Amino acid sequence: MEFQLDRAQEILERTPATLRELLAGLSDAWTSPNEGPDTFSAFDNVGHLIHGERTDWIPRARIILAQGPNRRFEPYDRFAQNRESRGKSLAELLDEFARLRSENVAILRGWRLTDAQLDLSGEHPELGPVTLRQLLATWTAHDLGHVAQIARVLAKQYRDAVGPWRAYLPVLDRP
Amino acid sequence: MEFQLDRAQEILERTPATLRELLAGLSDAWTSPNEGPDTFSAFDNVGHLIHGERTDWIPRARIILAQGPNRRFEPYDRFAQNRESRGKSLAELLDEFARLRSENVAILRGWRLTDAQLDLSGEHPELGPVTLRQLLATWTAHDLGHVAQIARVLAKQYRDAVGPWRAYLPVLDRP
Repeated sequence: MEFQLDRAQEILERTPATLRELLAGLSDAWTSPNEGPDTFSAFDNVGHLIHGERTDWIPRARIILAQGPNRRFEPYDRFAQNRESRGKSLAELLDEFARLRSENVAILRGWRLTDAQLDLSGEHPELGPVTLRQLLATWTAHDLGHVAQIARVLAKQYRDAVGPWRAYLPVLDRP
Repeated sequence: MEFQLDRAQEILERTPATLRELLAGLSDAWTSPNEGPDTFSAFDNVGHLIHGERTDWIPRARIILAQGPNRRFEPYDRFAQNRESRGKSLAELLDEFARLRSENVAILRGWRLTDAQLDLSGEHPELGPVTLRQLLATWTAHDLGHVAQIARVLAKQYRDAVGPWRAYLPVLDRP
């Protein structure tokens, strides 16, 4: 499927509500465990998505659109949420993500991007040249990857409880 | 995490709303592609979950609770939705799943299962003896596995569109 801005926006604008239905009000016993060292709990995933709204997608899009002399992105801190989510409840994080995402989708819509703008590029610190189109496709796929990751870390809490069915549920053993 | 009925119900009762937020109103371009031969599109996943509500979880629980002479479950048809979803819209399937799940969770709650009942067992046609507790844990983990699977098949539509970011998004290449 080729990237189309309106298709991408369909996903971007619904992720906060998807996560709210999946997570709001769930017991901490579901939302606080992770999948091992340096992995994310459901709670951590939401904090990670918030950090992306603040520092990654729209800020990087602005660097590309400005086409200034330095188009290199700031490196992304995958563990920033360990600091930033501290002391917050999951309900607060879900609200914060919904608010930031709504603002960012409004900014994206307001730009009324042309094909020529979508072809502009910036410099990823590790991956090299990337286009605005690729950045926006990645924002979208990244959302879906974290929905999958959250469902997986929740499912893993029942890895032993399912008994012999574990053989039929690959999600329980996926890294 | 040990199986606890009220914890499992937290997940079971929210899956229909999660899928509605994730899928309702999405373009067919997102919801109709699958991951290759004999795999499920997002649309197929919802039909599969509906088939489970009708023929798998509660019917198997009834076999266990009855403790009759034949406690062997009917084999499950993983591709039943190819017939049963034909001619239906995704919106209709999401409604049907929500209605069936709501009825089934009400049945489950109405049973007020004791620990002794949760320890009763039936006979899986391939896996052998399984307890009611394991069946209910599997129902729960199966939901989460399909939420993950749906998010994955959606994400894969942007496998090429993300360009070099594909290296950072394992969800795009996971079978």
